Amino acid sequence: MIDQGLFRRSFLQSAGFVIAGFGAQIASAQPSVTTAASKPGGAPKKRTIGVVLYPMFEVLDVFGPIEMWANVPDFHVVTIAEHKGLVRSTQGVSVQADYDFLDAPPLDVVMVPGGAGTRTELGNPVFLDYLRKADAQSEFTTSVCTGSALLAKAGLLKGRRATSNKKFFALAVAQDPSVTWVKRARWVEDGKVITSSGVSAGTDMALGLVARLYGVEPARLLARNLEYQWSEDPTKDPFAIS
Amino acid sequence: MIDQGLFRRSFLQSAGFVIAGFGAQIASAQPSVTTAASKPGGAPKKRTIGVVLYPMFEVLDVFGPIEMWANVPDFHVVTIAEHKGLVRSTQGVSVQADYDFLDAPPLDVVMVPGGAGTRTELGNPVFLDYLRKADAQSEFTTSVCTGSALLAKAGLLKGRRATSNKKFFALAVAQDPSVTWVKRARWVEDGKVITSSGVSAGTDMALGLVARLYGVEPARLLARNLEYQWSEDPTKDPFAIS
Repeated sequence: MIDQGLFRRSFLQSAGFVIAGFGAQIASAQPSVTTAASKPGGAPKKRTIGVVLYPMFEVLDVFGPIEMWANVPDFHVVTIAEHKGLVRSTQGVSVQADYDFLDAPPLDVVMVPGGAGTRTELGNPVFLDYLRKADAQSEFTTSVCTGSALLAKAGLLKGRRATSNKKFFALAVAQDPSVTWVKRARWVEDGKVITSSGVSAGTDMALGLVARLYGVEPARLLARNLEYQWSEDPTKDPFAIS
Repeated sequence: MIDQGLFRRSFLQSAGFVIAGFGAQIASAQPSVTTAASKPGGAPKKRTIGVVLYPMFEVLDVFGPIEMWANVPDFHVVTIAEHKGLVRSTQGVSVQADYDFLDAPPLDVVMVPGGAGTRTELGNPVFLDYLRKADAQSEFTTSVCTGSALLAKAGLLKGRRATSNKKFFALAVAQDPSVTWVKRARWVEDGKVITSSGVSAGTDMALGLVARLYGVEPARLLARNLEYQWSEDPTKDPFAIS
């Protein structure tokens, strides 16, 4: 018999999480701080997190962040692609897209991964249109790895600071040279847009978003429960390029 | 146009990987060492890596290792479950199982993830029988997180050292108290069996297997290309319990 809720709650409770929402914990820990996640005394905000898949996405770009975000009680993670159903990754494993671009719900957080398929989607106006539409409704728009090349191509990084995979940095730069492309960053936050470096950096970025919404302690506890060694300083980048 | 091969090769070539196989690089770097991966002058060994999915598996348990292993040129990763088709994870995203227990190919490396569904599979003789069958043919049998509870229940850890998720350690111990359960380990290697700690530790274990087969430098290069900060000492465990 599975009790998914119990398993998940036990993960969180063992670290002192308040299951009614991270917000409540923050409100008691930092009474003078009003976060975006909660109004003092108010119900925590529920958020829909949408991961936009495409053929030949990179699996860790997608599942590092999903692991972190799906363990936040007030986050609900969904997958979206141009065509719902199976989407094949660069690594050969296929993942189910719950929604297509027409029936996807409004997203509070959009996440665009990288992968070998990035180059194809750079030339796909349907994909880029969806990114613009989702971004227009989002509270946060995020990317991992070469996903930032797609955000740039869609025109969503104009005038902003951003980063990308270090091995394919030129691909991102080529999409919009007016962006301030940061070569030393685990991830970059510029207003509502958060872009991360290559592959594994996405997991650190995901925890960074949790910290921004709920505070750094809940993010640390989440990482600890998942035995994850979080690089919590976004400017500390062992893979920086010059 | 997608060129998956080119993308993957460029990842590896940029780090100096010899695409014909890691083995060739090892042979030239360490001429006096014969690894399991290559005979000097011989073709590198191709390996089939099988990840055994079940309902309510944990996504990072699965996709951290797959990210690392699928980027090894001589590894071919497949997914297997009791019923082929979609398998739903604890995080809500569903993943395709390529094979079922009847048509799965022989596996050189077996990997069993953890997740909320572990408890159900502990009572599933069909699942446990498959683990025994796969292990009988494997060169390595591995697990992440509570996956070691399943290996223990299947009787595959008898007389060995092993580890498990720190939050659910008692679950693993209960399956076979005759195992030497190690409370301070990122992962534990005992002969052909390699078990890792919770969730994120699986990615470090996966690189540990690459290092064992091809040497530590190729494993480091692989991590670097994926911007992954590898904890390469299996005994260094910030999440140890007493």
